[in-house]
Amino acid sequence: MRAPDVEAYIHRNIPLSAAMGVRVLEGGPDRVVLEAPLHPNVNHRDTAFGGSVTTLAILAGWAHVHLRLEALGFKGHTVIQQSSIDFVAPASASFRATCEGATEAGWNRLSRMLARYGKGRIRVEARVESDGHAVAYFKGEYVALPG
Amino acid sequence: MRAPDVEAYIHRNIPLSAAMGVRVLEGGPDRVVLEAPLHPNVNHRDTAFGGSVTTLAILAGWAHVHLRLEALGFKGHTVIQQSSIDFVAPASASFRATCEGATEAGWNRLSRMLARYGKGRIRVEARVESDGHAVAYFKGEYVALPG
Repeated sequence: MRAPDVEAYIHRNIPLSAAMGVRVLEGGPDRVVLEAPLHPNVNHRDTAFGGSVTTLAILAGWAHVHLRLEALGFKGHTVIQQSSIDFVAPASASFRATCEGATEAGWNRLSRMLARYGKGRIRVEARVESDGHAVAYFKGEYVALPG
Repeated sequence: MRAPDVEAYIHRNIPLSAAMGVRVLEGGPDRVVLEAPLHPNVNHRDTAFGGSVTTLAILAGWAHVHLRLEALGFKGHTVIQQSSIDFVAPASASFRATCEGATEAGWNRLSRMLARYGKGRIRVEARVESDGHAVAYFKGEYVALPG
């Protein structure tokens, strides 16, 4: 899938991403960059709502794992199992989540788990930035399941 | 604020909560219960999207801290600083986040911090359920700031 296809897929299957105005700036097996405008994601302080920031990071992580597994030929689906996020500064403009994913060792382990058990898990990290500064640091654990 | 006022406040100030169809079932200083319908929060598996589940829990925690501080007479605002969530089962129907908040010792410590420094932090937990079973367990750390 290319970036516009990833965006169409996400908007069609996860309507909240369309309500948030999520755009896929980069979407490939090595790196995913998603962006959301401030307005539909604003909070009572006129900055980005923590739920929106977290959701953008969750989506970036999910898309990254999904696209990497697709590139590896895995026919299955990916779901989130655990996540944590640290908010370090407010965002007063559009914000962007970048997930460059796991180490090669992590992907190799996941490939072995998929080959052996048909399912596996992987941890990825994402950072959220706005206007050139860090907004939040995210860690997510995703599970790949067959079918 | 009473439950309908909390709902109107959240919808007005955090438009994503309106897009999610969040309803405030209980909103008081001791307990907050929020609910969201499945449809606007669905994912590619026809279950509740992890971003929506997390966002509902973040909102429940935020509302609980905000309402408790309001009851204590604190004039300020509350922001999230850190959160984590474990997803234990998918939700195939509307889902509900309940935050019964921190221990009395936690609130007392927060009150002392507010009196001494004008700001403070507190950890709360929330559980998300759907159709009578647990969906996710959430922990959030919120900061109360002056003004």
